[in-house]
Amino acid sequence: MHELRKDILLGRWVAVMSESKAPSEYNLLSYKTQEERNCILCPGREYETPPEITSVRMPRSSKWWVRALPSLNPVFQIEGDLGRKGVGIYDKMNSIGANEILIESPEHTVRPEDLGIEQMIRVITLYRERIADLEKDSRFRYILIYKDSGVDAGEIFSHPLSFLMATPMIPKTVKDELDNAKQYFTYKERCIFCDIISEELRAGERVILETKNFVAFCPYAAQFPFESWIIPKRHCCAFNEITYEEIEDMGLILMSVLKKLRIIFRDPPFNYYIHTAPNMIPRRDHWHTLGEDFHWHLEIMPRLIRTSGFEWGSGFYILPTSPENAAKYLREVG
Amino acid sequence: MHELRKDILLGRWVAVMSESKAPSEYNLLSYKTQEERNCILCPGREYETPPEITSVRMPRSSKWWVRALPSLNPVFQIEGDLGRKGVGIYDKMNSIGANEILIESPEHTVRPEDLGIEQMIRVITLYRERIADLEKDSRFRYILIYKDSGVDAGEIFSHPLSFLMATPMIPKTVKDELDNAKQYFTYKERCIFCDIISEELRAGERVILETKNFVAFCPYAAQFPFESWIIPKRHCCAFNEITYEEIEDMGLILMSVLKKLRIIFRDPPFNYYIHTAPNMIPRRDHWHTLGEDFHWHLEIMPRLIRTSGFEWGSGFYILPTSPENAAKYLREVG
Repeated sequence: MHELRKDILLGRWVAVMSESKAPSEYNLLSYKTQEERNCILCPGREYETPPEITSVRMPRSSKWWVRALPSLNPVFQIEGDLGRKGVGIYDKMNSIGANEILIESPEHTVRPEDLGIEQMIRVITLYRERIADLEKDSRFRYILIYKDSGVDAGEIFSHPLSFLMATPMIPKTVKDELDNAKQYFTYKERCIFCDIISEELRAGERVILETKNFVAFCPYAAQFPFESWIIPKRHCCAFNEITYEEIEDMGLILMSVLKKLRIIFRDPPFNYYIHTAPNMIPRRDHWHTLGEDFHWHLEIMPRLIRTSGFEWGSGFYILPTSPENAAKYLREVG
Repeated sequence: MHELRKDILLGRWVAVMSESKAPSEYNLLSYKTQEERNCILCPGREYETPPEITSVRMPRSSKWWVRALPSLNPVFQIEGDLGRKGVGIYDKMNSIGANEILIESPEHTVRPEDLGIEQMIRVITLYRERIADLEKDSRFRYILIYKDSGVDAGEIFSHPLSFLMATPMIPKTVKDELDNAKQYFTYKERCIFCDIISEELRAGERVILETKNFVAFCPYAAQFPFESWIIPKRHCCAFNEITYEEIEDMGLILMSVLKKLRIIFRDPPFNYYIHTAPNMIPRRDHWHTLGEDFHWHLEIMPRLIRTSGFEWGSGFYILPTSPENAAKYLREVG
């Protein structure tokens, strides 16, 4: 019989199909890299983009390795105040925030898993630097870093890049995670994520890869088939407290998991994003250690299936491949 | 400046773009009706489907107008007990429930907006009958009726049909709606949906169509552009308490809104679903009137845009067309 599993973090149930679908049985969404002969994110056209926020340059050279730019089409505006007010029975505020493009490489066609560890370290360090910088702005409650790879995953530029959005509120999905983690902590006095890590390492069957500092696994009640999480073993609520050693280790494990997905599905569309603690949480003081109840992590969502009215209407997801089988395919490849 | 709006029902914020995108600017997902020359849901092949659950037949004829069948590929199984138990730190249960296919017409190619009112009444009546029947089973906590139209909306059969899923838990999206509606009711002692109806009729700018018994409108903080809701003016928590007069009126308003969407976007992929109260809520007693805090409705989600890592990672949505402009396009067409 199929099985229903409860997501311990979000309280959401998912259905796991008993006869797990093999990777080759997925009818992959059409993946096409958009041709962009005139990519303004490539080197040599820096004058056509908005002025850069920051960059890391090659020594004794004007060439850059990674760059952060303001979005070309921003949803949020950096200047102004929040102006929160009521409209009839509803609430609104100004769209204050930040949108940035984090260019991962000067090379137009390189894939994240092929960046090489040196460059991947620069990318992850750029993530950390941009979050650390924007956290100083007290209007921003949350900073999300995410990546869209493939047209069906919402990719709009074929140049390798990630995005950053700083929002004036904690987004709902993150708030649900935070609230449930807090509730668990109140009851157990332990971090739910640390408990998930122990459980996964004990059970083993959903682990893809383990390194000194990280575990990559397929969550017990994933939202999508082949969903994979990368989580640091060291308890830490905020991504931007990552150490240099952890950055290197994270780069290696992220590239490994992405390479495994690419081999299994031949360039599947995917998204990934980092869930970190919100801003303005004082993380430590002399009496309590705050931030005990959250634990940053990265979630990779391969976009292998289409969502229907069932998922949109219910928030209930169906997994054609069990997380145990997905992890097995991922462990065994590459 | 763009605007951020809070969904009063779910507490989710959305960003509404200031320069509203016109319908012609949407780069529509590829819509293709799958060719099914050998459709087993067409008349004449009844012996090839699982035994039907119910049907409405033409008088003095063996021909049917609408039919309910068990799913050909069920996620849920009707027989068995829930067997809820822990697995390490996690929870699971058996996949007990019901999946039905509700065939809307014997004609293979008819679209729901062209069914004609007589047939649409039969479809909505079938929805009501199936819910009323399955509600008797105390293992089922929720019954969701939904429709997928177009491959990019998850359509798997090109024959016109809706689906029914009876689940042993209240799905997360519905639970969020219920919890927030309850919280509002506790504070205001009024139904949040009744308040939304008054507000929308007062403001007028988001109303698409109003009939004697229903209002169709674009929600203030919709999740998707051109999202449209159909809601009964009479307060009632449960869809299956719909009256005959309301069924006719609902059929007319639903066909109108779908026709408007079809004209504007030329056969856009869309989903719709009915949000009704969960099972096993005693709806009335002598002391209280229970079910005061929920109000059933139908939500139509045109699938005009792709979701990216931003939406999946945050639960925050971006509306390229404001609900006021979407409602204006929908009011003025057809």
